[in-house]
Amino acid sequence: MPVRVAVNGFGTIGKRVADAVSKQPDMVLVGVAKTRPSFEARIAAERGYPLFVGGDGRVEDFRAAGITVEGTTDEMFKRADVVVDATPDKMGKEQAPRYERAHLKAIYQGGEKPDVAEVSFNALANYPAALGKSRVRVVSCNTTGIARAASVLRARYGVERWEVTLIRRAADPAETRKGPVNGILPTFQIPSHHAPDAQTIFPDLPITTTAVVVPTTLMHLHVNHVRLRRPPASASDVIAAFQETPRFHIFRSWERVEGTPQVLEFARDQLTPRGDMMKNVLWENGVHLDGADLRFFQAIHQESIVVPENIDAIRAMFNLAPDGDSSIAVTDMTLGLRS
Amino acid sequence: MPVRVAVNGFGTIGKRVADAVSKQPDMVLVGVAKTRPSFEARIAAERGYPLFVGGDGRVEDFRAAGITVEGTTDEMFKRADVVVDATPDKMGKEQAPRYERAHLKAIYQGGEKPDVAEVSFNALANYPAALGKSRVRVVSCNTTGIARAASVLRARYGVERWEVTLIRRAADPAETRKGPVNGILPTFQIPSHHAPDAQTIFPDLPITTTAVVVPTTLMHLHVNHVRLRRPPASASDVIAAFQETPRFHIFRSWERVEGTPQVLEFARDQLTPRGDMMKNVLWENGVHLDGADLRFFQAIHQESIVVPENIDAIRAMFNLAPDGDSSIAVTDMTLGLRS
Amino acid sequence: MPVRVAVNGFGTIGKRVADAVSKQPDMVLVGVAKTRPSFEARIAAERGYPLFVGGDGRVEDFRAAGITVEGTTDEMFKRADVVVDATPDKMGKEQAPRYERAHLKAIYQGGEKPDVAEVSFNALANYPAALGKSRVRVVSCNTTGIARAASVLRARYGVERWEVTLIRRAADPAETRKGPVNGILPTFQIPSHHAPDAQTIFPDLPITTTAVVVPTTLMHLHVNHVRLRRPPASASDVIAAFQETPRFHIFRSWERVEGTPQVLEFARDQLTPRGDMMKNVLWENGVHLDGADLRFFQAIHQESIVVPENIDAIRAMFNLAPDGDSSIAVTDMTLGLRS
Amino acid sequence: MPVRVAVNGFGTIGKRVADAVSKQPDMVLVGVAKTRPSFEARIAAERGYPLFVGGDGRVEDFRAAGITVEGTTDEMFKRADVVVDATPDKMGKEQAPRYERAHLKAIYQGGEKPDVAEVSFNALANYPAALGKSRVRVVSCNTTGIARAASVLRARYGVERWEVTLIRRAADPAETRKGPVNGILPTFQIPSHHAPDAQTIFPDLPITTTAVVVPTTLMHLHVNHVRLRRPPASASDVIAAFQETPRFHIFRSWERVEGTPQVLEFARDQLTPRGDMMKNVLWENGVHLDGADLRFFQAIHQESIVVPENIDAIRAMFNLAPDGDSSIAVTDMTLGLRS
Repeated sequence: MPVRVAVNGFGTIGKRVADAVSKQPDMVLVGVAKTRPSFEARIAAERGYPLFVGGDGRVEDFRAAGITVEGTTDEMFKRADVVVDATPDKMGKEQAPRYERAHLKAIYQGGEKPDVAEVSFNALANYPAALGKSRVRVVSCNTTGIARAASVLRARYGVERWEVTLIRRAADPAETRKGPVNGILPTFQIPSHHAPDAQTIFPDLPITTTAVVVPTTLMHLHVNHVRLRRPPASASDVIAAFQETPRFHIFRSWERVEGTPQVLEFARDQLTPRGDMMKNVLWENGVHLDGADLRFFQAIHQESIVVPENIDAIRAMFNLAPDGDSSIAVTDMTLGLRS
Repeated sequence: MPVRVAVNGFGTIGKRVADAVSKQPDMVLVGVAKTRPSFEARIAAERGYPLFVGGDGRVEDFRAAGITVEGTTDEMFKRADVVVDATPDKMGKEQAPRYERAHLKAIYQGGEKPDVAEVSFNALANYPAALGKSRVRVVSCNTTGIARAASVLRARYGVERWEVTLIRRAADPAETRKGPVNGILPTFQIPSHHAPDAQTIFPDLPITTTAVVVPTTLMHLHVNHVRLRRPPASASDVIAAFQETPRFHIFRSWERVEGTPQVLEFARDQLTPRGDMMKNVLWENGVHLDGADLRFFQAIHQESIVVPENIDAIRAMFNLAPDGDSSIAVTDMTLGLRS
Repeated sequence: MPVRVAVNGFGTIGKRVADAVSKQPDMVLVGVAKTRPSFEARIAAERGYPLFVGGDGRVEDFRAAGITVEGTTDEMFKRADVVVDATPDKMGKEQAPRYERAHLKAIYQGGEKPDVAEVSFNALANYPAALGKSRVRVVSCNTTGIARAASVLRARYGVERWEVTLIRRAADPAETRKGPVNGILPTFQIPSHHAPDAQTIFPDLPITTTAVVVPTTLMHLHVNHVRLRRPPASASDVIAAFQETPRFHIFRSWERVEGTPQVLEFARDQLTPRGDMMKNVLWENGVHLDGADLRFFQAIHQESIVVPENIDAIRAMFNLAPDGDSSIAVTDMTLGLRS
Repeated sequence: MPVRVAVNGFGTIGKRVADAVSKQPDMVLVGVAKTRPSFEARIAAERGYPLFVGGDGRVEDFRAAGITVEGTTDEMFKRADVVVDATPDKMGKEQAPRYERAHLKAIYQGGEKPDVAEVSFNALANYPAALGKSRVRVVSCNTTGIARAASVLRARYGVERWEVTLIRRAADPAETRKGPVNGILPTFQIPSHHAPDAQTIFPDLPITTTAVVVPTTLMHLHVNHVRLRRPPASASDVIAAFQETPRFHIFRSWERVEGTPQVLEFARDQLTPRGDMMKNVLWENGVHLDGADLRFFQAIHQESIVVPENIDAIRAMFNLAPDGDSSIAVTDMTLGLRS
């Protein structure tokens, strides 16, 4: 019996998770919820996803637009074993009592505070911690990127201390109301919230993060400086370590990938759905080793990187795979992430 | 026997045309050419396209990058019946003698001057003019958008005069060296070259164009004011006319598509390859009729809109389809443009 | 006795109007109002402007920041003959009853609806209409730009019809929360509100306007197509007509001013306060005449263009100058607009 | 006898240095050079600066534009004691032999390699090193920002190690041909050239720099992490240290300066010429101390920050002031940098 999954919210994350769920052999998508008719609601209908009206939305508005809906979210919840909450930031917590009343397991996104769930999750980092759990929080895009890299570096070399400067995209491509149009905005909370968030996964990770926002829509970029405990033999050794790990993509120098625009051009050229890049992206010529001091750039696609993590979280919660490796293997195969 | 097509240049246009050719029942892709190894060359190899070295490129450079090449463009030309020139702007003319020496028919892009070819081409507008021809020029993205709209408006209502303000994107997404970053640049040639270019298709079209460049990478946007000869009954009548014509996409008001960012978000959500939008895009609430005065917005995806036109041009040049409608039907079916 | 002027609001418009008032021989600035302490409040204090607390602001907050305030806006109003409302859009109407209770004449900005005032105003266009009036609305930046150009074209050549495409900046330089970052947003109201707004000045002006928003902060750009009643002899004739009129700046071709970025670079190089450009900006090579059809680009500095108009409005309301020419002469001399 | 200064190049740096020289009591501007007529050449003429034709420029072109020129750069050089080279990057080295033939002392900008001069210079950091020298290189904008901060931190607390992530603006406001429009470009040289450049000033500074380019025109932003030798008592202590040093500006939290856009809005509001900000900009709430670990943001105005340094360099080269403090005092008074 496949796990029955409902996705509450059909925006940037929700629509991708719904597509990913529908490709899993051990899951079935029982519905997605949207508050108002829109081109995204139309897409849900075209995909044949059972569509339900959430929030303060009205069934009549969908009917007027010619979009068939199957009911409200309460009805969707009855058909599901687990709900993936993909409502806007901070709204997940409000929804929690509804999920509980419906006796649903629930996955929350990284925009929620850690205490919304029993465990904060990343598949490479702490899959076993979510086994059998009822409430799991998939950490945010930036934290996911950090947790993946930490999984590699901790295991191979040990991390003595880690400084990350996060250069954050201002808005997603279709978030036309957010700025800035021109300028750099420092985040005045130092360290930024990303370091403590990474520590919900690795409590003893000696990491500090500082963030700025810049006027781009494509990807975040992390500038990392890590002092390792056991110095690698060479930068190539580190590159190989990332290369051997799932969910990392390394560009070679001759590929002439100058920055985030070409990263996403490559993803489009590979014909990945939506031009997404669900892996951490590194550059061969963007990894530098000086003794125990490792410096590297890492690009993070904020729209899609957490999608495979949501799938793995479901698998852990229902004990569909005993360990991270086996869940990741299925997820990555179905999502086209094995290169 | 399918027509054997070579694509010279594997950048924005070339890679899309190669993909499109490989989907046609009556064509076969015999090769693509690239000057230097790059992520795009890697994509060609991953796709299994025979790859040849063009321009001043060196076979050794590809080998060093681990990319197999089958020879130089001269060898590619021997295997082909027609070459689609997708070299950078103004370089097509330089290539022309090589194509002739190889006894190839040739398609040029709109960056070349009209006299490079026997006819300037748009499938909806003048397919028959290219029947059996040896040298055809597919007009540029903006002119293609205008020619398609002109095909509808001329036939249905007649055009008395037409003013277009073209708001042009500054660079394609991966063209990271082009600006401006912040500012609006008027094109001081008034009328801009787009009006005479449209007249290579419709010599008597009473059109004037004015252009500006703005800091965006996504799409061009045309602001149209057309005085029609025979006033339509209503704006809805005009919308229906576009809707019934291939290669037009009309967004409804309830879809909440605010601008070019949501247009491309929709294309990504539809899982079109590369998130491309090969149709002219109009908005139901962006069409306004006041007597004989029609005003409408039209968004043009500079990266992909000419791709189906290249396919139709090949079909005309080899008499593979007797008229535009039948060629368009095949092209649009294979490229997923029938909605 | 100079007219005593209070400025309610010390943002983009208010701070510039305050500076301008303080330079007039026949006016005195009795105070400016700000809701919260900020760098702009600090500037008011450094300039020595009497500062008052407006809106829901609290005197204590200013004191905590070390900024001296003289009281609340009610106290400011007692010292004034006229208030220039520079509160955010649509808040002027709410303030109106307070101004009336204080027996103040009032100037509103173009973000308010026309019925907030007795007359909508532009100095070149209809100065006499504001003579002695109590409530005057200075039209918005874009409408000011149109009204000035209309003043020249109507008088010299007559206007048969006029189409404007307004390419609007997304946000002012320091409005960091507004987007879009990347994309073009059509304004789906066709015609846009600018045409009826221009008709509050020239009721019979046969103008239609269409607008789009683009990701830039510097200036708006208008693309104009005007059919004139009496054809000019040449484009040079039209350029001369603008050149001879106050508040127009014409760039010559050899100045290599490619667009709005260089326009403002020029203003900075001229050491105008804040790098403002209070004139309509045209380009010699951006004016094209074809019989009676005039096409021209016009750049509009949204931050500053209405500032001299506010000054002239005050002068008209208190009969300080009998006609527009004499008021403009003083305003332009004091603001450094005579070149 | 004032020192006679020629400025070769009248672009971003040259025009500002010319203005600054003309305000000094102990210097006289004998000329500026420009290659082609342009709005900037017009500004030079309006300012009354003697204008000379440089590079491959032609006197006739200036005459045709109605701009008076006094001759070629060779003639300018005859009138000068020192030339400030403000030609485009890497062209200074080519010019060097001409300066030597003219027996001129010369100042080069940071775009040149260090070996173009006897000493690399920053007024706070190493003024005495330039005393009496003939060839001095003023380090680049980013290095100037680092050198100033290093002067404070080294003297007060000692620097154990320093990591800087430089978030660089893509282009200056009027450089309309440079991108990217949307995206983040890592600089693949790690460490970036800024660290060795800072070591031309402080050879033993234990600094590492990493850089990225982002689509903004306003300012660079540095994210600093410094391990200090002698831990400060508090962040306030560090803030006070910067505050007491010339050429630092610290914004308070209540000023609501969210990022680089408001920094420059403040500069405009202060009516500084061109809205320039020649000081290093820090934020009270952007300085964080954790034991000996100091983290702080610093914004650098690439267009203007080196201007006062050029003035001080001249003063050192001609022994016009015995030490940095006294030169800085005069420069800052004349340029309005004393707040």
